[in-house]
Amino acid sequence: MPAAEKPVLLLTCGDPAGIGPEVVVKAWDATPAHARARLRVVADAGMLADALTTRAGLPQPRIESIASDDPRESTPDRLLVIEPGSGRQDVAAGDVAIPPRVAAGLVSAAGGASAAAAVETAARLVREGLARGIVTGPLHKAALHAAGIEVPGHTEMLARACGLPDSAVSMMLWLPMPDAASGPAGLGVVHVTLHESLSHAVARLTTEGIVQASMRLAGLLASLLGRSPRIAVAALNPHGGESGLFGDEELRLIAPAVRRMTDAGIDATGPLPADTLFLRASRGEFDGVVAQYHDQGHIPIKLLGMHRAVNITLGLPLVRTSVAHGTAFDIVGTGAADPASMLAAIDAAVRLTDAGWPGHTASTAVAASETGRGCR
Amino acid sequence: MPAAEKPVLLLTCGDPAGIGPEVVVKAWDATPAHARARLRVVADAGMLADALTTRAGLPQPRIESIASDDPRESTPDRLLVIEPGSGRQDVAAGDVAIPPRVAAGLVSAAGGASAAAAVETAARLVREGLARGIVTGPLHKAALHAAGIEVPGHTEMLARACGLPDSAVSMMLWLPMPDAASGPAGLGVVHVTLHESLSHAVARLTTEGIVQASMRLAGLLASLLGRSPRIAVAALNPHGGESGLFGDEELRLIAPAVRRMTDAGIDATGPLPADTLFLRASRGEFDGVVAQYHDQGHIPIKLLGMHRAVNITLGLPLVRTSVAHGTAFDIVGTGAADPASMLAAIDAAVRLTDAGWPGHTASTAVAASETGRGCR
Repeated sequence: MPAAEKPVLLLTCGDPAGIGPEVVVKAWDATPAHARARLRVVADAGMLADALTTRAGLPQPRIESIASDDPRESTPDRLLVIEPGSGRQDVAAGDVAIPPRVAAGLVSAAGGASAAAAVETAARLVREGLARGIVTGPLHKAALHAAGIEVPGHTEMLARACGLPDSAVSMMLWLPMPDAASGPAGLGVVHVTLHESLSHAVARLTTEGIVQASMRLAGLLASLLGRSPRIAVAALNPHGGESGLFGDEELRLIAPAVRRMTDAGIDATGPLPADTLFLRASRGEFDGVVAQYHDQGHIPIKLLGMHRAVNITLGLPLVRTSVAHGTAFDIVGTGAADPASMLAAIDAAVRLTDAGWPGHTASTAVAASETGRGCR
Repeated sequence: MPAAEKPVLLLTCGDPAGIGPEVVVKAWDATPAHARARLRVVADAGMLADALTTRAGLPQPRIESIASDDPRESTPDRLLVIEPGSGRQDVAAGDVAIPPRVAAGLVSAAGGASAAAAVETAARLVREGLARGIVTGPLHKAALHAAGIEVPGHTEMLARACGLPDSAVSMMLWLPMPDAASGPAGLGVVHVTLHESLSHAVARLTTEGIVQASMRLAGLLASLLGRSPRIAVAALNPHGGESGLFGDEELRLIAPAVRRMTDAGIDATGPLPADTLFLRASRGEFDGVVAQYHDQGHIPIKLLGMHRAVNITLGLPLVRTSVAHGTAFDIVGTGAADPASMLAAIDAAVRLTDAGWPGHTASTAVAASETGRGCR
């Protein structure tokens, strides 16, 4: 397709002290996405050059700093960088006078500030219409904290950058199935509640919140799969509450949410006991699962394939995918960092932009109203 | 070993309408445990004969009804049955005038009553010193309810049969690793709270309860593995509470419990974020995990190998293992029932009786005091 029609996608490295720069450089080299999108890395070029010279096992592309509106195509051999600060020109690996030294594998305020600046720049470029989506590397929260930035994570950081309350967005994990017979297939898990104590999450569950998260999931999966997804809604309590014996949230909150979804034409089932639900989903019975709290979704997805899971933010007026792993300080620079999650995150972002997401999503009023919000 | 030295183990079928009779008959045929224990099935011989003639894919042993104190050895070709009612003599398959008709695959009061009678008889025989342990098939709670028996499950049923409060026992799931290099190895998960709403479970967590469950797990694993086990204690909240930001149970309840365990000489670590903990445990980093609530332990164990998981009750003065699966009404009689979990449950029971469990367990005062209780 002509270069001008290819969507621009921005990659960020997360904390430069972690494995983020490594998985970005490896994925840049290996992704087939250059044929379908114009990729750029939003990062300090000196930091990237430093990583290329000091960390083992990395390909050695030429690093080229470009303007944020440069229209050129991306290719594996030339790493196109948009710098959060002023643009430098054509910085080659090892060719940087004073590389910004963020010590690999250590928490630092500089690392946190650098990671946050990249995400904020990327969000601004999308707001300005210069890019369609963001693919993010792993942050380190203690480093953000050291830099004076207090957010639970990327999901909330991007919501705030778009002027949205935290409740307007949902975190989804997407696990592509590598042995799917054909086309994109995998398992998506959305979280009704996320970064809060379990007791707070349980107390805060509402039918409305479950419906919102479920509709966002259905909309995303419709775009990603190109068909109407099969959604299962997890119960909160053991054995799905055992008909009210072990808690009434299933009867009082979750079953009504499932009815609202089926009334809206969504293929939704539930509430289903969470322990067998994820087993069934892993065998292909469902495309998406609505998890009621963080660990209910994260435990199974990490067991099923942490290294290739993708984190997708729902509810933003832009495409945002991310690696689902952390900064892995213990293996930084060893060459062991696996780019599978970053590759899957880039692939998901390309599929979503190709599908026009979030411009039009599931054929439901709720999902449509979600995406009407602008990022101002 | 001489017959008289082999421990007697009692198998129960659970609800006769489910796959319990099938996995018992298949496991009886296939288990190598006859060489190390004297097995008996506590069941109605007519029901078993009925199952053998009407269900597909079963071996056809001769059914022999014996007295509860019959000392003979068990062999694969002759199914030794102790009847909850009066003993019949030598009932061959298809040779029963009026088989007790519990319709396969359906909930019935007769099925629930039959299942409960078998468990109660088995518990009585252990109390009377005629057997060392019980290996149970799957119950169906609606059938128990139809029979007027109100218990959340086997674990609580056996606690009550032994005159213990529900809090005196803990449910553990044991997942043997079939590809372990040598000897018994696998992953054990104990639950601090179990059959109650999630909000109730969270509110009811105490340091004492966590220590008790952990010590029971350490004691069991010491017997099963023949060495000091490596125990990990799961956090309750996402990211392990993020240093108190997402809940304080880690700081207030769980960390002090871990300190008490390490002070007692247990190799214990935690609290660890639950999502990555189970991934690490599944890779062999820990022998046992302390889960704070039902689904936290059940989601990962069922994903890792539901068909071969074993349910073990800790805190009883007897060996009790069980299949971890349900009655699977949908596949009853089709020949599809997999006896892997029943085989693993029999194997675990033999290992535990061989190790003298629960007569002596971990070298900790707490664990020892647990096992001092008698079943009266």
